[in-house]
Amino acid sequence: MMCPHTLYLGGNMTNKYYMPTRVIMGDDCITKNSELFIPLGKKALIVTGTQSAKRNGSEKDVKTALESVGIQYQVFDKVMSNPTISCVYEGAAFAQANDVDFIIAIGGGSPMDAGKAIALLAAQDIEEGSLFSGNYEDKVLPMAFVPTTAGTGAEVTQYSILTNDKAQTKTSIASDLLFPTVTFLDAKYTVHLGVITTINTAIDALAHAVEGMLSVRASSVSNALAVESIRMIMNCVPVMLQALQSGSEDVINLKQREQLLEASFMAGMVIAQTGTTAVHAMGYSLTYFKDIDHGRANGLLLGEYLKLVEMVRPDLAGRILAAMNFSEAEQFRELLSKFLGEKEEISSEEIDQYSKLAIQTKNIANCVVKPIEENIRTMFELSFAK
Amino acid sequence: MMCPHTLYLGGNMTNKYYMPTRVIMGDDCITKNSELFIPLGKKALIVTGTQSAKRNGSEKDVKTALESVGIQYQVFDKVMSNPTISCVYEGAAFAQANDVDFIIAIGGGSPMDAGKAIALLAAQDIEEGSLFSGNYEDKVLPMAFVPTTAGTGAEVTQYSILTNDKAQTKTSIASDLLFPTVTFLDAKYTVHLGVITTINTAIDALAHAVEGMLSVRASSVSNALAVESIRMIMNCVPVMLQALQSGSEDVINLKQREQLLEASFMAGMVIAQTGTTAVHAMGYSLTYFKDIDHGRANGLLLGEYLKLVEMVRPDLAGRILAAMNFSEAEQFRELLSKFLGEKEEISSEEIDQYSKLAIQTKNIANCVVKPIEENIRTMFELSFAK
Repeated sequence: MMCPHTLYLGGNMTNKYYMPTRVIMGDDCITKNSELFIPLGKKALIVTGTQSAKRNGSEKDVKTALESVGIQYQVFDKVMSNPTISCVYEGAAFAQANDVDFIIAIGGGSPMDAGKAIALLAAQDIEEGSLFSGNYEDKVLPMAFVPTTAGTGAEVTQYSILTNDKAQTKTSIASDLLFPTVTFLDAKYTVHLGVITTINTAIDALAHAVEGMLSVRASSVSNALAVESIRMIMNCVPVMLQALQSGSEDVINLKQREQLLEASFMAGMVIAQTGTTAVHAMGYSLTYFKDIDHGRANGLLLGEYLKLVEMVRPDLAGRILAAMNFSEAEQFRELLSKFLGEKEEISSEEIDQYSKLAIQTKNIANCVVKPIEENIRTMFELSFAK
Repeated sequence: MMCPHTLYLGGNMTNKYYMPTRVIMGDDCITKNSELFIPLGKKALIVTGTQSAKRNGSEKDVKTALESVGIQYQVFDKVMSNPTISCVYEGAAFAQANDVDFIIAIGGGSPMDAGKAIALLAAQDIEEGSLFSGNYEDKVLPMAFVPTTAGTGAEVTQYSILTNDKAQTKTSIASDLLFPTVTFLDAKYTVHLGVITTINTAIDALAHAVEGMLSVRASSVSNALAVESIRMIMNCVPVMLQALQSGSEDVINLKQREQLLEASFMAGMVIAQTGTTAVHAMGYSLTYFKDIDHGRANGLLLGEYLKLVEMVRPDLAGRILAAMNFSEAEQFRELLSKFLGEKEEISSEEIDQYSKLAIQTKNIANCVVKPIEENIRTMFELSFAK
């Protein structure tokens, strides 16, 4: 049998590549590279959630590094899950009131998404009605990011995803201004993440890599990174299943945590080029209306979307499945089901509402295999079938 | 048999990633994106060689784009192959005398290498004795690059490689200041490259990808890009052999030219992370003393180095060979021999001299499999054996 990976993966030669963030990886990389904060300014605002950055040691390491190079700081630790527009305006006002020069975001996707919006809003006046317009002045505070989960990839993307109550969904600010200047990847902050968070964030990263390969903007670069990211996450599947069965995250060792963190960063580089597709479009409603965790929402839908792709473009699904060492999408769907356990209830009214919202998103236009509204409804139904 | 590509490729988690250049690809991408020149300044210096940029249409397209957005320009078209230090000082003086705001380099590696040094030297005073010191002020003219060969990768690296008569070799200026702001990849400028130039430049790109995987700085990101780059170049091997046999470059179509250009850009991203290794260290003497083309010099040596790696680290060689669909390094050496034809004469005195120079380079320290001087001598001997 011919090795499936010898196929030419790329792509669309009419394409672009841009990802200017400097990424530093490794044990104690923050304190070992504290000089990287110096060009960012004299006073920092640390943007984070209420607890995890304190518990996992990342906030302490950032403060140690800042103190070693004589940089002052303030802390804004009010970022909630799925941060709201009012939260980021509050953070920006706090940044301005404290006259900070740059932003350090520490945490999972939520503090990083909030940190980007705060860096933008602290540097220029943008009314709430124009927040998602994409029309901004060329001004933003520099940013240093420390992801403490391995899923979002926000540390290397130009997206800030906020809860948008007017549109009843999560909406992206997308601007090249939002790429962080520098990102520090130290897997030790992820070691004590619980089993469910570890799994949901890994599924989120996997969704980024898979959806990147299903985007009309996929390129040879993004596909190469996506295939390797998928392979690295799949390498960690056995130990994540073991963690799920034993109920303990301790079976996942530091080396595996590093692999998940690096895979998540690479998947972030992918979506920085490609954007996301139907799965994210549909998943946002599950998070907004039913408070289902973002990674889990993607995981619930990803298997069914890959099955749809398999029917229309078996070549495209085949490349993704080959990176997983699977031969058909049903195997992947079954694996996701193992991870996700019992599924939530969803009514046909909810499916109707979410399908109507999803079909209007730009993520659908970004799909190589574009679902119509009926496909979306069917995917929701099958994803939640007991 | 297990597919060899399912092995985990990465890497050293203590690592870095940085490549801030914006890359635009596709047919007519320069004239379609002329607004990208606007933020670079009001007056450009076009740095190029004497002829090829005029013949292949790239210089005309750049001028059309500049005129469409009202940017003035001057042309410095005196860059020779393997540009000298005096050439780049002359270019920098010309840039200052004409008060240009930014540099546009058009051509193969030579104009791009020269363009970077000119951008640096026009922005700050650096004495010749400090040119390779790495200690510079944080000032450089912005750069827009247009590669017209598919080999060097200089359009996405921080290296400017100059002929250094004092050190009797080619020496790199390496600085993050030297990443171009923007790079345009349009394969139509490469369509009329002759067979030998096409082959030598493709081998250069292949050497970058292979050496990147053999560097102590290899990471999951660089390995993923390297594997895909190798695969894309190997896809074009049959048509390049056909071109060699028929003596006509016309058998290589635009799609294949695009693949070679994209592979070369990806291999450039690789060495921006990893640097090069023993092959480049040895090849520089062949170019400096014997005027052997840079890509050909690498090709002459690459097979023997991979055979050495295969003996010491068969796992590492195996990953590279798997991307080529080969099972042993000898197959690769034979393929290179087909491309290279009759080899130059080399004396044992020359081998002695070049080996002594190579062993001192930092490229050797960069190797996972570090050759000693005797290994280098043997590789030179075997590489030129008739």
